[in-house]
Amino acid sequence: MRIDSVDLYYLRMPEVLDIGDGSQDMLLVRVESDGHVGWGECEASPLTSIASFVTPLSHSACHPVVDSVVGQRLDEVGDIARIAAEVRARSLDLLQAEHTLSGIEIAMWDLLGRRQERPVWQLLGYEQSCPKTPYASSLFGDDPQQTLEKAVNVRRLGYRAAKFGWGPYGTGSVGADADHVHAAREGLGTEGILLVDAGTVFGEDVEAAALRIPALEDADVTWLEEPFTSGALGSYRSLASRSQRVRLAGGEGAHNPLMAEHLIDYGGVGFVQIDTGRVGGIGDALRVARHARAAGVTFVNHTFTSHLALSASLQPFAGVAADRLCEYPVEAKTLARVATATSLSLDDNGLVAAPAAPGLGLDVDLDAIRPYLVDVEISVNGTTLYTTPDLRS
Amino acid sequence: MRIDSVDLYYLRMPEVLDIGDGSQDMLLVRVESDGHVGWGECEASPLTSIASFVTPLSHSACHPVVDSVVGQRLDEVGDIARIAAEVRARSLDLLQAEHTLSGIEIAMWDLLGRRQERPVWQLLGYEQSCPKTPYASSLFGDDPQQTLEKAVNVRRLGYRAAKFGWGPYGTGSVGADADHVHAAREGLGTEGILLVDAGTVFGEDVEAAALRIPALEDADVTWLEEPFTSGALGSYRSLASRSQRVRLAGGEGAHNPLMAEHLIDYGGVGFVQIDTGRVGGIGDALRVARHARAAGVTFVNHTFTSHLALSASLQPFAGVAADRLCEYPVEAKTLARVATATSLSLDDNGLVAAPAAPGLGLDVDLDAIRPYLVDVEISVNGTTLYTTPDLRS
Repeated sequence: MRIDSVDLYYLRMPEVLDIGDGSQDMLLVRVESDGHVGWGECEASPLTSIASFVTPLSHSACHPVVDSVVGQRLDEVGDIARIAAEVRARSLDLLQAEHTLSGIEIAMWDLLGRRQERPVWQLLGYEQSCPKTPYASSLFGDDPQQTLEKAVNVRRLGYRAAKFGWGPYGTGSVGADADHVHAAREGLGTEGILLVDAGTVFGEDVEAAALRIPALEDADVTWLEEPFTSGALGSYRSLASRSQRVRLAGGEGAHNPLMAEHLIDYGGVGFVQIDTGRVGGIGDALRVARHARAAGVTFVNHTFTSHLALSASLQPFAGVAADRLCEYPVEAKTLARVATATSLSLDDNGLVAAPAAPGLGLDVDLDAIRPYLVDVEISVNGTTLYTTPDLRS
Repeated sequence: MRIDSVDLYYLRMPEVLDIGDGSQDMLLVRVESDGHVGWGECEASPLTSIASFVTPLSHSACHPVVDSVVGQRLDEVGDIARIAAEVRARSLDLLQAEHTLSGIEIAMWDLLGRRQERPVWQLLGYEQSCPKTPYASSLFGDDPQQTLEKAVNVRRLGYRAAKFGWGPYGTGSVGADADHVHAAREGLGTEGILLVDAGTVFGEDVEAAALRIPALEDADVTWLEEPFTSGALGSYRSLASRSQRVRLAGGEGAHNPLMAEHLIDYGGVGFVQIDTGRVGGIGDALRVARHARAAGVTFVNHTFTSHLALSASLQPFAGVAADRLCEYPVEAKTLARVATATSLSLDDNGLVAAPAAPGLGLDVDLDAIRPYLVDVEISVNGTTLYTTPDLRS
């Protein structure tokens, strides 16, 4: 069966603030083939991705993404990788294409799963969907006392794992950072899994990051996330060799599987964090998960938007019991929370798993998201290339 | 002085064909500050880059590029790197931003050079602009006889170096590829520098590429370019260790300096090819050139469009005599040829050099390019975010 249509929907909150909250807008993708429909979400700048989908041809390696998707055969799992490879080849020089591809690829998995009435993780070859320990992500407080209170609250909410990041971390003294980390540990208690996210604050500066390691080790921190710019492999490797117990984590910026594999092979990370909405989709995330397993590295999802994105990001490591942690969005904006009719809630043990229902296992709630739909129009030399399509099931 | 305005212009040929000719359209950037003007060119999908420049804010790490450029101070060389770093940080999650930044960064160098009445290569610290040996790029012919004739013609035109690539190479038998390579050598003569471009045809398949090495060594080929996907560092390293005399070349896909440095540090290339219109601009290309020099790797520009792009790509290695080769567009479309009032022609010795005139040393010919200007309009919720601005000097 052919892909009959691909629709892109830009949705956003009435007010978008200049804060580190990536759930303020979203780009949903609807793929239809022979009456079957699948949905995906790009973790990307919506308008820019829409432009990459419809842009006029520049040359044979700079096609609009639509050229390699609509009209393609989509009969079986292998077709998805073939279509993704075609997008990458024909849009080789169109940088944004990999972000745009990601949501389309996810929607193709959802569609095939629904058509075959099987969850995506089964299509990936997994026999079960293993429950994961969700971790709650928070910003560090403005001072250690605030960080302490946030950690106490996270513990009270029942989370056994918590990540603190950004805020003042890495911008002041080594002592101030240590105070924040110790405050987080105190609030979370000795049993909790504590993670720290440096938000690339040290650029490529290994020495600055290395000064923070002793406090992280004292506080029994499991990982230090993104100390450096995501591609700074030499800095990662160097810092990794200087930490005894704290492992490095990174990979959310990877827009293809090779970039993530490099963090493992050359950067020496202990945890690789993949956003299926960026890396090229579920198939590419699965490739990274396999590479990680072979290298003794733990795979973790990166997710901060809707539960549609969460389900998509859980699929690639759903069947791997050893990959036990899961990033779980806890402070998402209304748009992200209402986007799906149901959500992936925690079970009685406080764990979360990729659902057993067909496809991604979640229905997009069209009525709930309709008020957030953004009206976009793009025209070139008088020809309209894109107007926001109607939201339809 | 502040940056008063940044204008993006999408230009294209009346007909754009699905062929491997990247000179069929262009995205020019005009930056103005306190009455001074500089020009640059992005090697990017024009419409997608325009969208990345004006897109609404998504969150604090997904700003439109314009937010980090217009209104910034631009007094001295150091300001350019500061602005570029700000674009990368505030548009961290906007993939297209690095392509868009590249043309803006180039225009800032042109502007500063013109204001200080010095060529950009002097601003970079070079004392001279060393002449380079231009190589002519051609597609392999459909059969070895055609390749032979093309090589004879290149030699007749006076080029001492020639690159053949794409076309049938890597898609048929090992023997057929060998015949093409030997035909190219025969046509070019024993003295000429012969380069081969595989156009990523082998993906990540080292064995397939390795089978081609003996013929390349027999024909005294200087480099094998892009045998693999640009990020396939392990494949590059593996093939590099299996060639005796033929060195590997790559890097045109790098959209930041780290990606290019990885090809040197982990991929084992002997030549690193940088397009300043993609890598982040002239400053980032200079960083790669220095890294290459320290590693004993030769830096080469990647250019297939206008002479404005050619000048920008020559600046980062203008002062390095040892980096003697230069990609020189010989078959560019009319648009690319008329874009500048003058061009970087070959001297009496058949060599080409970054010009001695201020900035990039070339004036954009507004009247010549005006017929190619594309009329773009982008609106979001009824607000027009972009309409093609007037072309002005």
